[in-house]
Amino acid sequence: MSPGGLGEFEFIERLRRRCDPNGALVRGIGDDCAVARVPAGELLLTSTDLLIEDVHFRTAWIDMHDLGRKSVSVNVSDVAAMGGQPLSLFLALGIPADLSLEDLDRFTEGVLSACRDYGAVLAGGDTCRSPRGLFISVTVEGAVPDGLQVTRDGARPGDLVWVSGTLGDSALALRELLAGRQPPEECLRRHHDPRARVELGRTLAAQRFASAMIDISDGLFSDLGHILDASGCGAVLRRDLLPLSPAFLEFQQHQPEVNDLALTGGEDYELLFTSPPQHAEAVRALATPDLPLTEIGQITVSTDGLRIVDAQGTLRMPTRSGFDHFA
Amino acid sequence: MSPGGLGEFEFIERLRRRCDPNGALVRGIGDDCAVARVPAGELLLTSTDLLIEDVHFRTAWIDMHDLGRKSVSVNVSDVAAMGGQPLSLFLALGIPADLSLEDLDRFTEGVLSACRDYGAVLAGGDTCRSPRGLFISVTVEGAVPDGLQVTRDGARPGDLVWVSGTLGDSALALRELLAGRQPPEECLRRHHDPRARVELGRTLAAQRFASAMIDISDGLFSDLGHILDASGCGAVLRRDLLPLSPAFLEFQQHQPEVNDLALTGGEDYELLFTSPPQHAEAVRALATPDLPLTEIGQITVSTDGLRIVDAQGTLRMPTRSGFDHFA
Repeated sequence: MSPGGLGEFEFIERLRRRCDPNGALVRGIGDDCAVARVPAGELLLTSTDLLIEDVHFRTAWIDMHDLGRKSVSVNVSDVAAMGGQPLSLFLALGIPADLSLEDLDRFTEGVLSACRDYGAVLAGGDTCRSPRGLFISVTVEGAVPDGLQVTRDGARPGDLVWVSGTLGDSALALRELLAGRQPPEECLRRHHDPRARVELGRTLAAQRFASAMIDISDGLFSDLGHILDASGCGAVLRRDLLPLSPAFLEFQQHQPEVNDLALTGGEDYELLFTSPPQHAEAVRALATPDLPLTEIGQITVSTDGLRIVDAQGTLRMPTRSGFDHFA
Repeated sequence: MSPGGLGEFEFIERLRRRCDPNGALVRGIGDDCAVARVPAGELLLTSTDLLIEDVHFRTAWIDMHDLGRKSVSVNVSDVAAMGGQPLSLFLALGIPADLSLEDLDRFTEGVLSACRDYGAVLAGGDTCRSPRGLFISVTVEGAVPDGLQVTRDGARPGDLVWVSGTLGDSALALRELLAGRQPPEECLRRHHDPRARVELGRTLAAQRFASAMIDISDGLFSDLGHILDASGCGAVLRRDLLPLSPAFLEFQQHQPEVNDLALTGGEDYELLFTSPPQHAEAVRALATPDLPLTEIGQITVSTDGLRIVDAQGTLRMPTRSGFDHFA
């Protein structure tokens, strides 16, 4: 039995009634498989994410509605990073006996609200009791016009490195939560309710502005490393140009050490992309007050590694080979 | 960090090296999303399953290679039940610290071996440590020619009810394991390494023999109930015709009460389908020595409910409305 005394079938039926009847699907929740039509001429994109209680989240810190939204956003962010449009979401839930039906309802409301934000539908999933902790697995399917998908391996020496939004807010919030302090509200919102940059990703792909793209989940340094590994390139990154939010800047005045979080903190879910210099003005024109786009460096040859420099070009961190980002 | 001191990236890299390079995919493991092409004129099928330690399996009972295979088969079985061909598999793993690297390797070998059996490729996933127990979430994508998908809602009064293979073996094995006894080997194999009936499902769909289909995961009684609910029908089921394996029959001689397991036990992963009577001979001709097909009843009008009768037509169980299959 599931929480609140609901059986599995009853829970699924509750959920099904709150979804669009089939939505864009040929068949939604309630059969052995969801059945969907991938738009003609488009490729299917799929990504899976795990969110495990006490590893990825603590229920004492995050509201269940936010957790539902975040579970969707972190997953959809992978589709955004390929330049695609999310279509269907699949939710697998291991539900501990002590989760109240009210909390479960708030969670699923959050899931459905984020799906609506991104134009996706909840198309299926699985639920069962979990003997130990809440376990969430989310799989998103999306589509991208064939040939427009933006992978990690297309960066070339000379390309500029861009990032959307601001960096480090989410990591700053986590740092404060772990220390038992109340984080700045704006940073906490970024940590609990990140937004996947779907529209930006689609535009960059459609205009063929991005040569490589990834979403920042592990942190700028680590995720840029993935692009460099896949593309066989190096990069030089201007540390002084990393975009920081007003809340982050204010916090940093008193605790300058948090500046590292913009480089190494995770869960920004901003888009990090490379783009040939001739597109620089056009890329800059895509920025909005809500979503700035910042040029933070340039791709170089692989033998350079990843170098972090300041405005004067002085090396501000060891080369990448000396930096263990698995630690 | 993951088991055996492997980091997440290292584990994914190990796994990636053991997969077909991209296989049938445009892009496999190693980018934000897997990228695939759904065959022209085909619909996309997707299903997700959870397997949680101490809910769905006990590591003391099942070998890790079998667990890997079973995780794939139970998921692929949903694609088989729609008449589809599995294409891609996505694996999300929450890995406890005490799982050895050897066990993890055996698990992934099992996953890959089952993928090969079904003609699918491991296309992506997510891994992280689990603070408590092994947590497996599997998502399969498949395809079926548009219009040939077999759903649960197509049964019509007069259709015959068919089932593949034999029933109750898996449930018998579980019963014995729970009682601390050694199950018959054949039943244990069915419990630990069930086979998804992909070829049969595809044939039934391609020939348009099946009007409704489901795989038996919750038990014949419950899963036939899903077809009846979706189709708005009743059924009469001949209890004496349920196909039983030699091992099951031998066991039943000493413990006749296990006969119920063929009706209510779960995890058979056989195909349960309905078919208009004019196809009866053609359906019968699809049976093989390894995979019998048995006619076990007939669809009736919904007011009849689900009636279980013996060879003489005597009611052998309460009508469905009096039977709580959520319990």
